Amino acid sequence: MGSKKRDLVIFFSERPATAAGVFTQNYVQAAPVLLSQQRLPSENIRAIVANSGCANASTGKRGLTDAEYLTGVASQSLGIKPESVLMASTGVIGEYLPVARIENGIKNLLKDFFPQAINPAAAVEAIMTTDTMLKTSWRQIGLESKKINIWGCAKGAGMINPNLATMLSFIFTDAFISQKNIVQLLKKAVQKSFNCLTVDGDTSTNDCVFLLANGAAHSVRIKPGTKEYQLFQVNLAEVCLELARKIAADGEGATKLIEVIVKNAPSEQKAEMLAKSVAGSPLVKTAFYGNDPNWGRVIAALGKAGVKFLPERIAIYLGKLCLAEKGQPKKFSEKTAKKIISQKTIQLTIDLHYGRKSSKIFTCDLSPEYVLINASYRS
Amino acid sequence: MGSKKRDLVIFFSERPATAAGVFTQNYVQAAPVLLSQQRLPSENIRAIVANSGCANASTGKRGLTDAEYLTGVASQSLGIKPESVLMASTGVIGEYLPVARIENGIKNLLKDFFPQAINPAAAVEAIMTTDTMLKTSWRQIGLESKKINIWGCAKGAGMINPNLATMLSFIFTDAFISQKNIVQLLKKAVQKSFNCLTVDGDTSTNDCVFLLANGAAHSVRIKPGTKEYQLFQVNLAEVCLELARKIAADGEGATKLIEVIVKNAPSEQKAEMLAKSVAGSPLVKTAFYGNDPNWGRVIAALGKAGVKFLPERIAIYLGKLCLAEKGQPKKFSEKTAKKIISQKTIQLTIDLHYGRKSSKIFTCDLSPEYVLINASYRS
Repeated sequence: MGSKKRDLVIFFSERPATAAGVFTQNYVQAAPVLLSQQRLPSENIRAIVANSGCANASTGKRGLTDAEYLTGVASQSLGIKPESVLMASTGVIGEYLPVARIENGIKNLLKDFFPQAINPAAAVEAIMTTDTMLKTSWRQIGLESKKINIWGCAKGAGMINPNLATMLSFIFTDAFISQKNIVQLLKKAVQKSFNCLTVDGDTSTNDCVFLLANGAAHSVRIKPGTKEYQLFQVNLAEVCLELARKIAADGEGATKLIEVIVKNAPSEQKAEMLAKSVAGSPLVKTAFYGNDPNWGRVIAALGKAGVKFLPERIAIYLGKLCLAEKGQPKKFSEKTAKKIISQKTIQLTIDLHYGRKSSKIFTCDLSPEYVLINASYRS
Repeated sequence: MGSKKRDLVIFFSERPATAAGVFTQNYVQAAPVLLSQQRLPSENIRAIVANSGCANASTGKRGLTDAEYLTGVASQSLGIKPESVLMASTGVIGEYLPVARIENGIKNLLKDFFPQAINPAAAVEAIMTTDTMLKTSWRQIGLESKKINIWGCAKGAGMINPNLATMLSFIFTDAFISQKNIVQLLKKAVQKSFNCLTVDGDTSTNDCVFLLANGAAHSVRIKPGTKEYQLFQVNLAEVCLELARKIAADGEGATKLIEVIVKNAPSEQKAEMLAKSVAGSPLVKTAFYGNDPNWGRVIAALGKAGVKFLPERIAIYLGKLCLAEKGQPKKFSEKTAKKIISQKTIQLTIDLHYGRKSSKIFTCDLSPEYVLINASYRS
């Protein structure tokens, strides 16, 4: 806080929203996570207060009191109930929130509060830390005569690992959906997007994804088992996936997005474990940074995943170029390989020939900039 | 191979040695690992052929045939049985061994073979890859009127994770010990040394530790339950620990050795899981590289280990300086912290106040050089 970057944002819904949240699986949970968890799921969420710079994690009872106090300040200014305000924080762990400054910030934000004046870019900037790009996604669905919107934003660049990442994501829709269904929809969408993401294997204390549905589109309620529900689900999944891909592509110091696909595995879970092991391997990631099609490191990363497979059946592809077959070297054109691996988005496919299930995990390369960013982040 | 660095070595014992091995836990095991595993434990090991540059991993049946052939070449030249020769390789995964060149190399080495002329530094150089330092350790024990030697060497710098690392270590003693006891002694020594080591979380396909005891000191047989056994065990453990510490300190791109100690944990296993999670965290390691006492990252790394503890009880110490107490920030002198964290060897202690067991794990910091080394290793 105190830098010129925006570092505080309040998302406000004019109507009460049904809302669900998904939270970090780190055993240590930040105060705003604990607070928002208490308040979700809900049929009456009106606002999210989010700040960057200080994570309010490892701050004990004082941290929780601070978060409660600040959501209280927002609820009073907005004339809504305290429990209808969520909070999310990102930044340095192990420091107390600068409460007085954030309190002033909230009051200043709400003093000039015109819902019409909302600037999505400014809002998303406020939750960025080491992010270099704004991450938003928007889908529109025609439902009977109404248009339904799903808009989401996210932050996250490092300390990112499956089962959430150091990431915040807020998704808003004007659809009309029950609390129970919102919970199910979010859980399912996160499973195939944010939970398929790894940057550095570190897991934050502050991750959360919120989904708010306030029904402002005045459409009928979207119910499970209908074509509308299916359509909504697909579009929500797309929003989450787009945000997840943007997070991976903007991983700290990243120069490229890598999609690791494990196919023909005995089960989806095993495919995922193998793909995550490859996507999380520093040696695979540095090879990608160096534009080096070093598939031996892929083999080594598969082998450490703790999953049974038959090494002598494995084929490895960079894009469509086969690097290894039956677990052994295959002659390939180094020139073609270099061309593929130098692209901004690369598919690395591992065919186990040992089943029929598959999984896809998103990651980025590991560059010296990752280290430099994180060697000086706190100070 | 083909660079000016030595890349082939043969260790030879004039007397048959009892011998044991510990191997990589990677699901994909290199041909020399498979071969040596077949031949160990043994009461009749005479030689180890080791090469660097090519790992002979992911090379299928041809790889195994190559390794068998080359140990055969060595055994013929030395006039010993093929099964009394072990092999170890380190280097690029997914390439076939240059058999003809290694065969020539073996013959040339043995042509000028004078046991007296052994040059340990040259021998160890031959197994180095990205290592920047020779890693050896030597202890001498007085046993009755005899002197017993334990001498070991190791290589390893990257792709290093507990449950071995990308590392080779060969330990030789002139003590007289049974095959059964050699197996037990090695297992125990590795547990508290090489298995307490992480550089980058990647696990190699080629790791092995061999212990050979040839009885050349002509002492009595060292038997379990005796003072001599105890003394041997302690000294063997010291040799392994010294080698492990040297590997951590020479981690690729490392500027410092970090000892992560978790104490007052509910069990040794849990202490180890927590210490490994911290030692393996890229964010913790980059903070150390940046001389930044960012203990919040330590908390986050503890929380992702999947082990229960009470965050509100945790204290964190850098050397003897307390950074956090009861899971919350504690005021400390930044100047003192910078001074401690800038040293070449640093102790990071996490006191859980949640039991009585402890564990110590060795790691190093993560620098931009790690990335640069590994971005261009293959080519």
